Amino acid sequence: MTAWASLPAEEVVPGIQRQTVHGERQSLVRYWYAPGSVFPVHAHPEEQITAVLSGRIRFEVGGETLELGPGEVAVIPGGTPHGAIVVGDEAVETLNALSPRRAVGPVVS
Amino acid sequence: MTAWASLPAEEVVPGIQRQTVHGERQSLVRYWYAPGSVFPVHAHPEEQITAVLSGRIRFEVGGETLELGPGEVAVIPGGTPHGAIVVGDEAVETLNALSPRRAVGPVVS
Repeated sequence: MTAWASLPAEEVVPGIQRQTVHGERQSLVRYWYAPGSVFPVHAHPEEQITAVLSGRIRFEVGGETLELGPGEVAVIPGGTPHGAIVVGDEAVETLNALSPRRAVGPVVS
Repeated sequence: MTAWASLPAEEVVPGIQRQTVHGERQSLVRYWYAPGSVFPVHAHPEEQITAVLSGRIRFEVGGETLELGPGEVAVIPGGTPHGAIVVGDEAVETLNALSPRRAVGPVVS
């Protein structure tokens, strides 16, 4: 058992922090985005399912734009370029499930 | 993009509902447990990472007991018998990441 509050937060880019719990087959990542923060477009081999818990965020996924708010979920296939920007003045919290388990690697991976 | 609110809820056992978003490699499942509800001990081959969003829940995992509240997370290895019971008067909401993707099968699988 782990509490998010007990896990170290990694600052991925300015204003965006993540904490990660690893299984053997998957990782669950809690993201926190400050208002105004931007996650540059990037890609990783892992499939990603993002569930927004609070705030609003606009994703660019494979060249398309989708805006998610609390209670909304998106599946981003492995290898698909994606980025995100916070919408409005509220911080954003998401849980991202990644499979396979995320390799420890570059900060923006 | 999907909203949990738009997905059908499956009643797994009385008082416990789930909604599922599938990727190719994993499934993300939203569980809602009414106060007093009990998820009998069961096992499934998928690895499970459970994150509690609200309420308190007591898991029995492989014969051990752990109690989770908001902001707490547990990894349950594939094939490990586990069950759960709501603690207190508040409903429980969790997000469970399962990998591999959960097969469509029996209601309690």
